[in-house]
Amino acid sequence: MARKRCEILCVGTELLLGDILNTNARFLAQEISQLGLDLYFQTVVGDNPRRMEEAVRLALSRSDFLLITGGLGPTSDDITKDVVARVFDRPLVMHEPSLRALKAFYETVRRPMPNNNERQALAPEGAQVLENPQGTAPGYIVEDVTGHAAILLPGPPRELQAMFRMHVAPYLRQFSKGLILSRMVRVIGLGESRMAEMLEDLIVEGVNPTLAPYAREGEAFVRVTARGDSPEEALRLTEPVVNEIIRRLGRHVYGVDVDSLEAALAQLLKGAGLKVAIAEAGTAGLAASRLMALPGAGGVVGTSISAEHLEEINGLIEPQGPALPASPEAACEKMAAALGQRLGVPAGIAITVNNQRQYACAVWLGGRTSALIGAAPSPRDMAYVRTQAVQNAFDLFRHRLMDVAEARL
Amino acid sequence: MARKRCEILCVGTELLLGDILNTNARFLAQEISQLGLDLYFQTVVGDNPRRMEEAVRLALSRSDFLLITGGLGPTSDDITKDVVARVFDRPLVMHEPSLRALKAFYETVRRPMPNNNERQALAPEGAQVLENPQGTAPGYIVEDVTGHAAILLPGPPRELQAMFRMHVAPYLRQFSKGLILSRMVRVIGLGESRMAEMLEDLIVEGVNPTLAPYAREGEAFVRVTARGDSPEEALRLTEPVVNEIIRRLGRHVYGVDVDSLEAALAQLLKGAGLKVAIAEAGTAGLAASRLMALPGAGGVVGTSISAEHLEEINGLIEPQGPALPASPEAACEKMAAALGQRLGVPAGIAITVNNQRQYACAVWLGGRTSALIGAAPSPRDMAYVRTQAVQNAFDLFRHRLMDVAEARL
Repeated sequence: MARKRCEILCVGTELLLGDILNTNARFLAQEISQLGLDLYFQTVVGDNPRRMEEAVRLALSRSDFLLITGGLGPTSDDITKDVVARVFDRPLVMHEPSLRALKAFYETVRRPMPNNNERQALAPEGAQVLENPQGTAPGYIVEDVTGHAAILLPGPPRELQAMFRMHVAPYLRQFSKGLILSRMVRVIGLGESRMAEMLEDLIVEGVNPTLAPYAREGEAFVRVTARGDSPEEALRLTEPVVNEIIRRLGRHVYGVDVDSLEAALAQLLKGAGLKVAIAEAGTAGLAASRLMALPGAGGVVGTSISAEHLEEINGLIEPQGPALPASPEAACEKMAAALGQRLGVPAGIAITVNNQRQYACAVWLGGRTSALIGAAPSPRDMAYVRTQAVQNAFDLFRHRLMDVAEARL
Repeated sequence: MARKRCEILCVGTELLLGDILNTNARFLAQEISQLGLDLYFQTVVGDNPRRMEEAVRLALSRSDFLLITGGLGPTSDDITKDVVARVFDRPLVMHEPSLRALKAFYETVRRPMPNNNERQALAPEGAQVLENPQGTAPGYIVEDVTGHAAILLPGPPRELQAMFRMHVAPYLRQFSKGLILSRMVRVIGLGESRMAEMLEDLIVEGVNPTLAPYAREGEAFVRVTARGDSPEEALRLTEPVVNEIIRRLGRHVYGVDVDSLEAALAQLLKGAGLKVAIAEAGTAGLAASRLMALPGAGGVVGTSISAEHLEEINGLIEPQGPALPASPEAACEKMAAALGQRLGVPAGIAITVNNQRQYACAVWLGGRTSALIGAAPSPRDMAYVRTQAVQNAFDLFRHRLMDVAEARL
C-alpha cells in the first residue's frame, strides 16, 4: 500500500495578504513529517467561498488527508464548514454537545452569548467533532466513503496545536507506516557548493537516509533524513552517515542538531566551565545579542560592551574610524586584559566593523590571542557585513576552544 | 479592464516540511497588496519537478503573474529554472553577463568557483535577467505571448527583498490600477479591546479608508487602509482619520508608520540631539539589542552594558538577586552618574528583572530620574517578563523625552 498523503490548506485573508506569518503551516508540516506521512503541497486562500471550494476539491483529488486551518469562528466570513459540507455533500446540523459547551463557556465568563456564536456548534453531518481544549470553536474530521478526509482545525495557533496533539495526531498515526527522523549537520567555513561536492556520492546515492544540502546566511547545513519503524531504528540508520559527513568535513561541522553557531559555542563554553566577555564596535551589538538570546546565556556571557560612535569605552575597544584598528590583536588584548583583570572573565571576543565593509575579530583564551581580518564585497549591505564578522569571530573562538580542549586531553 | 492577478509559489523542501518559516510569502503578499494588485493563492511545493510543474501550470492558468521563490541555487535540486523553461517551452541558454558577474564574485572572495555554479548563469531564452544586488543567483521575468509571466526570485530573504524592490515592483507597477496605501497607528498602554471601543464608530463606518485593530505582544495598532489613483491621493484620504485617532488616543499613540517603539524612541532622541546609555541585568541584553538593531542606532545608543550573573559591573548596576534593588532610582542614578561622568552621555535607561517575574526600570534625563516597578502573572514565561520590562522602560523614557521637549517649547 502506498504511503498516505497529507496536504495543508490555510484559510484567511490576513494570511493571504501577509498581515501575519503562517506559523500554522510550519507547525503542521513538521508534525506530518514526523508522523511519516507524505506532504506535497501547502496552499493559502482568503475567506472567499468559490476559491476555497476550488482549493478543497483540488487537494482532495490528489491527497488522502486535507488539513484545513481557520475559518471556524462565529463571524459571517468564517465559511470553512459551509464549503467543506458542500464539497462532501452533507448538510450542517446542530451538534448539541458543542452547543452545551459553548453556553457553559459564556456562563463561566459571565457574558451573554452573542447569537451568531451558535454557528460554532454546527457540524457537517456524520463528522467526528474534535473538542477544543484551548478555545470555543470545535474541530472536525469529515471522511468520505473512499477514505479521503478533511480535517478542520481552528486558526489560533495555541488552539490548533493543542487540538492537533490531542485528536489529530492519534487519528493520523493509524495510517502512518513508520516515522521520519531528520538530523541537521551544521557547517561553517565551506560554501554550499563546495560542501555538496565533498558529499556528492552520499547525496546522489542516499536512499534511507537521504541527504539534502542547504545554505543559510553565513553557513550551510546537510539534512539527513531516515525512515524507520521506531525512533530508535531511524536514529540508528542516520548514525553511520552523520559520522561519515563529520569525517569528511572535519572541523567545518560545528554541531549536529544544534540550533545555531552561538548555541554550539555556548555548549563548548559550558563544557569547559568558562564565561566569555564580548566587546564590539560597529556591529549594532550583534554578537552579544545572539549569544544572550540563548536560554541560559547568563551562564556563559559574563559581560558585553558595545559602542557605536563613541571614541572609546574605557580603553576597551579601539575607536571605530574609516580604517581598521592598526592591530586587531592589540584591540583584543586590550579588551581582554582590561575585562579579565577587572572582572575575572577568562575569555574574550572583540569585533570591529568599519563602514568600508571591513572587519577585524580577535579572541582571547588561555592567555593567547588569535585574530583575523576580512571584507565583504561592496554591494552587500551592512547587516550582511556584521553577520559575516560575527560568524567569523564565533568560528575563530570555536576553533580556539577546541584547540584548548584537545591540548588538555 | 479587470485588475491583474498575482499568485505566489514558494519552492523548497525545507519550507514544505516546516524546517523554516515562510517569511518570503508574507513579504511578497504585503508588497503585492500595496501595489493594488489582486492576490488569491499562495502555494508551497518541494524540490520535485513534476509537482512543481503541476503548480506552475495551475497558477499560470488562473493568474497573470506568478512570483516563484527559491530553487535558483547551484545544486542539482535547484530546478525552478528547468521547470519554468519547460512550461514556457524555452531552452536554457548561458547568459554571459551573469557568468562574468559570478566569476568576478569568486575573484573578490578569493575562492575557486565550483563548476556546478555555472548553472546559476543559465537563463530561459528571452527572459529578462534581474541582477541580484545581494547575492550570486540572478532572477528572471519570463513572459508568454498572452502577457502572463513567471517572475523567478531567489530564496534567501535579503536577496529576494532587494531584488523585488529594485526590479519587480517597478515591473508590476505598470500593471497596477490605483494602489493601496496602509498606515499603521501604533499604540502602547491600551489593550486592543479598549482601543477598539474608543474607535468603534470609525471602525464600523470606515469605507475608504478602512480601519482594522490588531494586538501584538505588549502593544496594539490600527491599520488605516485607503485606495487611490496615486500615492498622494491615498495618503490624503488617510490623513483626517489618522489625525482623529491620534486626537482620541493621545500620548498612547507612539508613532504612525514607525516600525517599533524603539524606532519611535530613536526618532525622538535624534530630534533632541541626544544619546542614551543602557545598563541592564536579567533581560538577556534585550533593551540594547532592540535599540541597536535599528539602522543608524549608533547615533543614539552611546554605550550599553549588560550582565547576567556577575555580581556587579563597575558598580554600574545593582547585583541581580531574588529581590529587586532596594531602590530602582538609586540603581539608575548610579548608572547614569557613572556613565554620564565618564563618557558624557546625557541620558540613561536602567532595567533589572529578577526571577520572581518582577522588574524595575528607571530613566535619567535632564538631571531627573523617573522609575517604575512591575510584575508579570505567573504562567507567563521569562521572555514575556523581559519584553514587558523593556516596553515599560522605553515608554517611560518616551514620556520623559516628550515632557522635556514640551517644556522647551
